[in-house]
Amino acid sequence: MITILRIGHRISRDKRITTHVALVARAFGAEKIYIDQKDTKIEENLNSISDKFGGNFQIITGIDRKKILKDCEDTIVHLTMYGENLEKGIKKIDKKRNLLVIIGAEKVPPELYQIADFNISVGNQPHSEVAALAIFLDRYTKGAWINNKYNGKIEIIPKNRGKKVIIKD
Amino acid sequence: MITILRIGHRISRDKRITTHVALVARAFGAEKIYIDQKDTKIEENLNSISDKFGGNFQIITGIDRKKILKDCEDTIVHLTMYGENLEKGIKKIDKKRNLLVIIGAEKVPPELYQIADFNISVGNQPHSEVAALAIFLDRYTKGAWINNKYNGKIEIIPKNRGKKVIIKD
Repeated sequence: MITILRIGHRISRDKRITTHVALVARAFGAEKIYIDQKDTKIEENLNSISDKFGGNFQIITGIDRKKILKDCEDTIVHLTMYGENLEKGIKKIDKKRNLLVIIGAEKVPPELYQIADFNISVGNQPHSEVAALAIFLDRYTKGAWINNKYNGKIEIIPKNRGKKVIIKD
Repeated sequence: MITILRIGHRISRDKRITTHVALVARAFGAEKIYIDQKDTKIEENLNSISDKFGGNFQIITGIDRKKILKDCEDTIVHLTMYGENLEKGIKKIDKKRNLLVIIGAEKVPPELYQIADFNISVGNQPHSEVAALAIFLDRYTKGAWINNKYNGKIEIIPKNRGKKVIIKD
């Protein structure tokens, strides 16, 4: 099981970026996201997507970060541009254990670098936590996320031109 | 050469998402991004990143989309959740030709599906154009983007704990 922990979410500034982080978590094989700041709008958005497109993705906002990290028995990975090389870091992770992936917004509290079992970088150039999470989960699942089945009311069928959508009642 | 064309950018709503799209373009091996709407703030942000972190990335905002597409001699790929399967689509692209990748924000004009040589999906679940671009460029470059050299004033050295940064004058 893969859980994402989004740290430092600010409702006004980050609403779209954090929504993208949560959607990527869902689409790339995570089962749950915690967001530190309470944000019912993002909860509604994600639950509405899951209602239409299926799956069992859980979103929980307004959590006690310190308690979650204290109680956590998963392997903890913190994605940061300062971290260890992606390929090297990912090889060290025990795939049999559950995984918690921490995604910061801008600066993160320094203690997170210590709490994490692995600080991993998705390249060392500045880019995007949305992209970093996607690439990390893609590598971690060896691309298997793309075959996940969601059994939603809406299913999109791949097509080179136009749109093919199946809508079930 | 890889160029990105960002369509449907709205300054107030999309500023952070489009900034992430541009940063991903730069970090994952594209050389240029066109953004349809004029946005000097995003230009300044990206040029400031390139000034510090190096490379020759170009950002041009406020362009004539129809003219650019009409004059374009590159292979045109449009990333969309309705498109053809990623692996299948990417195999069809002639890697010897230059590439233009179109990234929409929300709905895109229907003619883009026709103009594109390939409409490619990065999974068929809703997620993020930032993630879609990163995964597409990762697959297209076979992961080679991570070894690109930027020769910037600031260089970050991968490290499992803490931060190691080289700053050159």
